[in-house]
Amino acid sequence: MKKLWQVRTDKFTNEQEAIMRSGNVYQIANGYMGYRGTLDEFGPDELVGITLAGIFDRVGNSWREPVNAPNGGFTQVVLDGRAISARTTKIKKHRQCLNLKNALFERETTFLPRGNTLAIKSSRFLSAANPNLAVIQFSLTCDKTANVVIHTGIDFNIWDLNGPHLLKCAAKKQDGTLCVSGVTNEATRRVAVAEAADFDLGKETYSATGKKNLRVIHLQAKAGKTYTFQKFFAVFTDNDQVKSPSESAVRCVNEAKALGYEACLARHNTEWTKKWAACDVKIDGDDEAQLALRFSIFQLLIVAPVNGSANSIPARALSGQVYKGAIFWDTEMFMFPFFLNTYPEKAVELLRYRIKTLDGARRKAQTESVGFRGAFYAWESQETGDEACTYFNIGDPITGRALRTYFRDKQVHISGDIAIAMWEYYKLTGDDSLLLEGGAEVILECARFYFSYAYFKPEKNRYEILDVTGPDEYHERVNNNAFTSMVAKATFEIANATVEYLKRKRPWKLKSLVKKIKIADELPQFIEAAKRLYVPQPDKKTGIIKQFDDYFRLEDATVEAVKARKIHPNEYLGGGQGVAVQTRVIKQADVVMMLNLFKDRFSTAVKKANWEYYEPRTEHGSSLSACAYAMVAAEFGNLDFAYDYFLKTAKIDLEAKYKVYVGTIFMGGSHPAANGGAWMTTVFGFGGVHADENQVAINPRLYKKWGSLQFNLVHRGERFEIKISQSSVEIRAHTSNKSRHKFVVAGKTQIVAPGTSVAVKY
Amino acid sequence: MKKLWQVRTDKFTNEQEAIMRSGNVYQIANGYMGYRGTLDEFGPDELVGITLAGIFDRVGNSWREPVNAPNGGFTQVVLDGRAISARTTKIKKHRQCLNLKNALFERETTFLPRGNTLAIKSSRFLSAANPNLAVIQFSLTCDKTANVVIHTGIDFNIWDLNGPHLLKCAAKKQDGTLCVSGVTNEATRRVAVAEAADFDLGKETYSATGKKNLRVIHLQAKAGKTYTFQKFFAVFTDNDQVKSPSESAVRCVNEAKALGYEACLARHNTEWTKKWAACDVKIDGDDEAQLALRFSIFQLLIVAPVNGSANSIPARALSGQVYKGAIFWDTEMFMFPFFLNTYPEKAVELLRYRIKTLDGARRKAQTESVGFRGAFYAWESQETGDEACTYFNIGDPITGRALRTYFRDKQVHISGDIAIAMWEYYKLTGDDSLLLEGGAEVILECARFYFSYAYFKPEKNRYEILDVTGPDEYHERVNNNAFTSMVAKATFEIANATVEYLKRKRPWKLKSLVKKIKIADELPQFIEAAKRLYVPQPDKKTGIIKQFDDYFRLEDATVEAVKARKIHPNEYLGGGQGVAVQTRVIKQADVVMMLNLFKDRFSTAVKKANWEYYEPRTEHGSSLSACAYAMVAAEFGNLDFAYDYFLKTAKIDLEAKYKVYVGTIFMGGSHPAANGGAWMTTVFGFGGVHADENQVAINPRLYKKWGSLQFNLVHRGERFEIKISQSSVEIRAHTSNKSRHKFVVAGKTQIVAPGTSVAVKY
Repeated sequence: MKKLWQVRTDKFTNEQEAIMRSGNVYQIANGYMGYRGTLDEFGPDELVGITLAGIFDRVGNSWREPVNAPNGGFTQVVLDGRAISARTTKIKKHRQCLNLKNALFERETTFLPRGNTLAIKSSRFLSAANPNLAVIQFSLTCDKTANVVIHTGIDFNIWDLNGPHLLKCAAKKQDGTLCVSGVTNEATRRVAVAEAADFDLGKETYSATGKKNLRVIHLQAKAGKTYTFQKFFAVFTDNDQVKSPSESAVRCVNEAKALGYEACLARHNTEWTKKWAACDVKIDGDDEAQLALRFSIFQLLIVAPVNGSANSIPARALSGQVYKGAIFWDTEMFMFPFFLNTYPEKAVELLRYRIKTLDGARRKAQTESVGFRGAFYAWESQETGDEACTYFNIGDPITGRALRTYFRDKQVHISGDIAIAMWEYYKLTGDDSLLLEGGAEVILECARFYFSYAYFKPEKNRYEILDVTGPDEYHERVNNNAFTSMVAKATFEIANATVEYLKRKRPWKLKSLVKKIKIADELPQFIEAAKRLYVPQPDKKTGIIKQFDDYFRLEDATVEAVKARKIHPNEYLGGGQGVAVQTRVIKQADVVMMLNLFKDRFSTAVKKANWEYYEPRTEHGSSLSACAYAMVAAEFGNLDFAYDYFLKTAKIDLEAKYKVYVGTIFMGGSHPAANGGAWMTTVFGFGGVHADENQVAINPRLYKKWGSLQFNLVHRGERFEIKISQSSVEIRAHTSNKSRHKFVVAGKTQIVAPGTSVAVKY
Repeated sequence: MKKLWQVRTDKFTNEQEAIMRSGNVYQIANGYMGYRGTLDEFGPDELVGITLAGIFDRVGNSWREPVNAPNGGFTQVVLDGRAISARTTKIKKHRQCLNLKNALFERETTFLPRGNTLAIKSSRFLSAANPNLAVIQFSLTCDKTANVVIHTGIDFNIWDLNGPHLLKCAAKKQDGTLCVSGVTNEATRRVAVAEAADFDLGKETYSATGKKNLRVIHLQAKAGKTYTFQKFFAVFTDNDQVKSPSESAVRCVNEAKALGYEACLARHNTEWTKKWAACDVKIDGDDEAQLALRFSIFQLLIVAPVNGSANSIPARALSGQVYKGAIFWDTEMFMFPFFLNTYPEKAVELLRYRIKTLDGARRKAQTESVGFRGAFYAWESQETGDEACTYFNIGDPITGRALRTYFRDKQVHISGDIAIAMWEYYKLTGDDSLLLEGGAEVILECARFYFSYAYFKPEKNRYEILDVTGPDEYHERVNNNAFTSMVAKATFEIANATVEYLKRKRPWKLKSLVKKIKIADELPQFIEAAKRLYVPQPDKKTGIIKQFDDYFRLEDATVEAVKARKIHPNEYLGGGQGVAVQTRVIKQADVVMMLNLFKDRFSTAVKKANWEYYEPRTEHGSSLSACAYAMVAAEFGNLDFAYDYFLKTAKIDLEAKYKVYVGTIFMGGSHPAANGGAWMTTVFGFGGVHADENQVAINPRLYKKWGSLQFNLVHRGERFEIKISQSSVEIRAHTSNKSRHKFVVAGKTQIVAPGTSVAVKY
């Protein structure tokens, strides 16, 4: 059983790329910060990164990106005058392990420095109970007597992609506590790290040179004796709204130190027990799938925003500064469903982030191209919601020139993706508080944006959404992209439904909102647009939906043929002259993504026809692609494919089969959207769960290898445990539930009362 | 005086590029065919080309291009066993001359073959009286007695860019007449060349090897004696609608031979006298300008279509197969005004060509992108009007890939350019016959196309023309291009005016036309669109007109800076990733072209402001650019600039400062649009002539160097001679005129009666 809760290795691979990838896989995080899976003695060369959520900085004209904190977890052992490191010292044995159950990282390395044996063991966690806090236990054992010097403290040689972000770094020590604080370059926001350690090993001095603020312990190690100490470090920034981040950090570590490692761990574990109780999924009979899925869920749990933070989850989570630490549509479309259905208090934060950044989206609408009205959410969003993406976002390795890409100004579906998530939250939870606290405003502003973006075609008596980039980014600036237009249409419908709902239930709220955003005259337009907005429809004969207007005019080349045209291994397939642009080869699910998102509106036959048409033409050059194809494949019964692509999605980081460079841009980092996709494929795809405001439908399509699939669901605020076997579905309603809920299992309706369970054969 | 009617050189430059350029400059033509300015003994290696108007062919997937005929003008002298050629034989003296007065090409070369001196002299013309006929006189003189063999006849080693186009070439001789005939590859249209010669020099045999059909004359040349003969060749094709092209060609040359060289020349000269009487422009006091302008006018006269042919003039005239021999908007916008104002019977042919190809334009509208209604005239038009341009029209020399260019599908202004020319013909001639014979149909179908292409923007209550490429081809797929939108608006206005005119004067014609093209319901749309179509207007403060929606969002780099970014000398600056695309550097006049075309609608201050803004940002990468800037500069008084750019335009081929390669495409050839621009700059720019249906305004802006400027004008079908000096304008009405006409000279109105002249001080 234990192996289904652990990711581990017995090898240390001393290569830069392996260290980069291992840093992603073994990372821990707690929503407040991420800590890459690097070893205690590592520094910036090994891509040590403590990436903070929701605090960003920009240096000159480089990309704006999240701030990495000084590494309070640094420990370096010097044995008989030699610094011991996995990179330079001979290794006898190495083992490292990520415990999924409680996000605890452990390493154990036996070194063979000249004439001796040194075993180092450490474990660390970022407290789930106290988001500013990190806790480490470190021990060492020598085979023979030796002079050991331990350097431990805060390393502020920070690995930045486009740094340095922390200026005026000051190292202090105060009553045995170390502290490093600095201010960000752009907004002079303070960032402080304090470290306290529980030591009783030998003479302790301090050293604050080489951008390290360290305690130095001189120890005459006895043969065979294990020396252990505990470290606590805390990160505080001005985002924490404290008087002094450094004082808060110092206080935090001293309190933690007083509490001790075990007590801190116990509090941390309590939180993790709750998380897994709410979110775990059990797959019986398929350990590979079980571990990969659990790892995926784990990835989402560690980066779920701190309650009340109104932060969201970046596309590369907290695994570093890649992709500018920006929040993409990935969050609403691929991660949000997991939280909505298992952990709604985190779903709320994700949406609060969009409410918080509404003004940024308004600014973006006004300033892009000829200027639009409403809310045009950013493709890459940071703390204010202003666009972080540049117009020239990819470098061409052939010419060395920056490529004009249209991610930023043409990927207009993002606003609608957010409106859909906002409405989905209300529908599935029944909780309208978010609508009232800004959600309705977001929805109306998104509809307003689409109306302002759309054109009317008189001779066809319809609105069209022109000049957009859909999910398939290899085809920029296309007209009537099925996905985008459908999202826009849904946004109008949602805006109309929101108005209807408020009119009925919260008329005063509607009145003040309409007045606030001066939208009264436009509401009839949304009704008209919902009716007359053109969305490409399935061809009457073939069922195929045109991805965009001129798609079928493009060369019908195979993915392999297109890739073979590359003249540089890292060249971008899209952009102005990318080799895919003039072909039907697409980057990722686009029409099929649409069919999955709007699954109620299309027949299974249409889904199958489009899947069969588009899948062979898809490069799957995005981590968002495989799960969309897997879910639709599950729906029409190609379970083998669905399973393959489920595994591909769930193991993307474990197997590290993702692109590290696109054009000249470094893309390494974790893939939380794929993690969300793995969960969706399991529960929505194989589980066949499809909920709306009235019911939960379950149409199981269990993979043949799976004895059973067991998962948790929150529906309308109440908890259920579902267990699907090859022939039956068992639904267990939590005892704390208050209402009876309707489930429709393979067409059979069941009403499930609080504290009861029902089993249905299918 | 003679030097102002001749282009000549005393040098022969034996380099491939010089031979290519010389072939352009010294070409002769007669509307039916062009004959490049190559020497008698030259073949395909020297780019000999006899390019035919209005007959095209395609081989495989290569570009469709005009057919080159076998060279009936070939003569090769062999002296004492050595073939004499300017490329391989030592030259003592060489002179070649193009007589502009009568389009006669002459060469005289004194060779120094081993131990002898051989003088060759030849003259040739393509008959202006008989378009199928070419006439040559050839003579040779040796210093010393020598064995001379003359090979003369038809060389059917044809220089083709994408050939071979003539299949099944058969060489015949028949009663002393040589004939070569073949059929085109694609449409099996017959092409025949016959040659007759007037010989009495020695023993004559025949040789038909090596793709040459030759007579071989063995001659014991006496020292100092000149031997002369005459050659006549004729080209006929199935386009001539004769029973047998070869029989017609044989008959033609035999009749010409019977007539003799001098008589043929006399008939030819008579025609040329008429041409110059109608079209000459005299610039007193500036020989450089005089010759360059006359050369320009000459270029237009030689390629003016044969009466009744309904052919038009390709962008590279008849100088070869470059640019597919295709007709572009160049013709209507840059060449047509010259013909309309001096030689209307040729203007008629140019427009008849567009009427003839209306169905091709309709097909193009239906088949581009999502399909449009009406007439979408081709960017590159051949005999049917179907689009000859490919979607991948330029090769990228950096990657070796074909670039997707949008000349074809987005340069929608062409339809309007044609509608404007059609209406201008009616307005300035008063002749509605063209409107009745298809012109009105063209205009309505062009308006229909724009309505079908346009979108309505409800919140701005206006139509917009989106996703187009304007004259500045470095910025493709832009919205609300000022030039294009203004042209579209004018097209709607013209359509409305056409309907009004027909309603008033030709109601039955209107009725049958409206019925034929089922357009009754759409006519109100044109009225609405003429009113509500958005055209970018001058900024209220600066007067600057945005070239297109996002133009001012582009980098404001200098032309030099942009060019310095090239990494390959021939790389195209436009296309997907061209270095100009994301900057404000434009290829050619665009806003300024619009201001010139619609000069009545904008103030001089606006013209000046835009000129000053856009000119420094213009690469002038098109031969269409300089004259537009020159005309507007003349209008607001920058005469020095206007003069420089006038010379640049007029001398483009003489000085050969044009691009020979764009991307991987060979672009050599002559520039008739620039020639038309030179005439326009002189008469409209410096002459300040601006005519409409009611009057001719003349606001002279004579260049300081010019003593006087004298030109001919046809207005409302009647002829005038205008002489502008630095202080007065003299208008002389032809005695054959029938009406009094209103002239407004520098604001002063004059009525000019037939046979009278008026002089106005200004």
